[in-house]
Amino acid sequence: MINETYKARLSAKSVIRELAEYATARGEEIGYENVFDYSLGNPSVPTPKAYDEAVIRMHQDMDSMSLHGYSPSLGNTKVRGIVADSLKRRFGVDYETKHIFMTSGAAGALAHAIRLVTKPGDEVLTFAPFFPEYGPYVNDTGAVLKVVPARTEDFQINFEAFSSMMNEKVQAVLINSPNNPSGVVYSEETLTKLGDFLRSKEAEYGHDIFLISDEPYREIVFDGEVCPYPTKFYDNTLSCYSYSKSMSLPGERIGYIAVSPRATDADILAVICGQISRGIGHNCPSATPQMGIASVIDETADLRVYEKNRNLLYDALTDLGFTVVKPGGTFYIFPKALEEDAVAFCQKAKKYDLILVPADNFGCPGYFRMAYCIDTEKVERSIPVLKKFVETEYPDR
Amino acid sequence: MINETYKARLSAKSVIRELAEYATARGEEIGYENVFDYSLGNPSVPTPKAYDEAVIRMHQDMDSMSLHGYSPSLGNTKVRGIVADSLKRRFGVDYETKHIFMTSGAAGALAHAIRLVTKPGDEVLTFAPFFPEYGPYVNDTGAVLKVVPARTEDFQINFEAFSSMMNEKVQAVLINSPNNPSGVVYSEETLTKLGDFLRSKEAEYGHDIFLISDEPYREIVFDGEVCPYPTKFYDNTLSCYSYSKSMSLPGERIGYIAVSPRATDADILAVICGQISRGIGHNCPSATPQMGIASVIDETADLRVYEKNRNLLYDALTDLGFTVVKPGGTFYIFPKALEEDAVAFCQKAKKYDLILVPADNFGCPGYFRMAYCIDTEKVERSIPVLKKFVETEYPDR
Repeated sequence: MINETYKARLSAKSVIRELAEYATARGEEIGYENVFDYSLGNPSVPTPKAYDEAVIRMHQDMDSMSLHGYSPSLGNTKVRGIVADSLKRRFGVDYETKHIFMTSGAAGALAHAIRLVTKPGDEVLTFAPFFPEYGPYVNDTGAVLKVVPARTEDFQINFEAFSSMMNEKVQAVLINSPNNPSGVVYSEETLTKLGDFLRSKEAEYGHDIFLISDEPYREIVFDGEVCPYPTKFYDNTLSCYSYSKSMSLPGERIGYIAVSPRATDADILAVICGQISRGIGHNCPSATPQMGIASVIDETADLRVYEKNRNLLYDALTDLGFTVVKPGGTFYIFPKALEEDAVAFCQKAKKYDLILVPADNFGCPGYFRMAYCIDTEKVERSIPVLKKFVETEYPDR
Repeated sequence: MINETYKARLSAKSVIRELAEYATARGEEIGYENVFDYSLGNPSVPTPKAYDEAVIRMHQDMDSMSLHGYSPSLGNTKVRGIVADSLKRRFGVDYETKHIFMTSGAAGALAHAIRLVTKPGDEVLTFAPFFPEYGPYVNDTGAVLKVVPARTEDFQINFEAFSSMMNEKVQAVLINSPNNPSGVVYSEETLTKLGDFLRSKEAEYGHDIFLISDEPYREIVFDGEVCPYPTKFYDNTLSCYSYSKSMSLPGERIGYIAVSPRATDADILAVICGQISRGIGHNCPSATPQMGIASVIDETADLRVYEKNRNLLYDALTDLGFTVVKPGGTFYIFPKALEEDAVAFCQKAKKYDLILVPADNFGCPGYFRMAYCIDTEKVERSIPVLKKFVETEYPDR
């Protein structure tokens, strides 16, 4: 019989998807260049040329079995070693091959990480604003996602609320820095406090609490900064990564879990992930993108456009009087709407062909998200439109 | 806390994996060409050249976003259409784009199909001998796999046992034809009887019973035959396919579910699969192999070697007095061991550097599997060794 739980989801509509579909339809009407589509977080810069060249060479030179054969279920061993070395070099954490588990993007990484450190009925805490897919990512494992309210002044962690929600059933805490949707990077101070707090709770409860760190935007950080690396602040950390954003490879589904070498049972956690794979249809990520990213491991796409767009939008929004925290990374910005109901606000924006996403689903009602992974030229053209929208719809501000 | 259920699996050893590791280690000692490794079902023939050429062209000519961007969660729409057309042309079933859900190989297809038509606690029946991974594939969803004993005279379905195990809790029946490990192809007679039986049980219980048909070996059929297509015999069929074997692409993780257009809710089952994906870390299969297989949709690797090997081994085993059903397809053969304990039998074979897999895990104790996806030259060299093994260890037969 057809599973009614999954079937029932079809009637729950995705706001982002609906807006993206609207943008596409509207684009067909008036030309897509005239729709200021800030709805979707799809990378807008090309994949590094060296990646494509590496894939071409692999298909020209490698024998078929070595290229297209099964990779081990934990991932291509050589690729795992290259990832470990790169992380060690960059962050000074003593990763070895055994700590790396290759996955189908960050979604695959999270699917394994959550099952690895929770059982059905356990609680997983995350922090608003948060990526709405965390709901099914966590709840479909049988664990229960609970959301700590946002600290809206800077979108760092609201430790007061966090502390009041913490309890013995919490087996994992899920963070995302740089953050989708706020663009905020957790500071060293936040991560230090988080590590201290989790260690104290591990001692109090007498069990491990794992930090699942979702880091697909790790490389998209502005102002010459480097994103503080959560694993350095807390030993029981599973670093979940994807090359979707940094190398503009979202369709190729390639990422990994890096198990902190200082985590409990660090030497076998990747092997246990291999057991989890058996039930969720993940034998190994595709062979070609595994070898592809390994051949250009420390490269990224040209990510500078995102900083340029951030600057333009942050300045424009500030000038227009929006309350907005300056994003330290990602390609998102997360201002407060100009009326309490962000859905109504975004609805009005549509009249100006501005596609903005209300943040109710991100656990932060009253705010909206703009995904500025679009051409700078379009961002520039959108600013007078934004101004017109604000001045027309909210003249008394 | 680390999930103890998954952790406990590390102590359960995989017989196949252990044998394969032994074969590799032994190969390093005496030269791999001297180890007659019949343990692993890895395709041994190259991927069609046209596939590699298509991938190279894609990486040379396509713009980065079109090639590496997110594909929709149900799969690249154009690719789904090409798959539907190909199946329609070949099997006369009226598939359309909406009936095809692209997956990461057959493992991904089964992970979705089982969740689609069962809920935790439901029963799924399969037939011995069966692929041992069906255990975690089914049981990790919360449904319960039950195995109908084998009909050893021809490895078609044992309907008597099937009928006695059928009950209202059975929501899905999982078949695999051509079969791993027996190599047997279900006949039209078997599939007709199966369809009739399931229809009668649907009427009796008043609910749908889905047939999940795992078909990675569909294209590897011998003697000029075509594998009878289960969807033609039963409407509520989900055909789960992988290009791993037919195109020798196991590492690229590419396959699909084809929903019978005559299944209950046929038009929305692929969409529901898209909802299931959210919780199991599958956003879409990798973009490149999706487009790669679509560009060579009706090609296969040169599969003739498997038939040649089948002939050699079947004749040799028969000559040596083994009880063995002639495989109609795949690259497996499944003889009865020469003593009751197939584990002991295979252990003795190792002395002759013959790596055979005892079938206890396949739900068929007393039998063993040979995966003959190896060079014909090696099969030929193995035959005198097989003879020596039998004559030395079982002189009184």
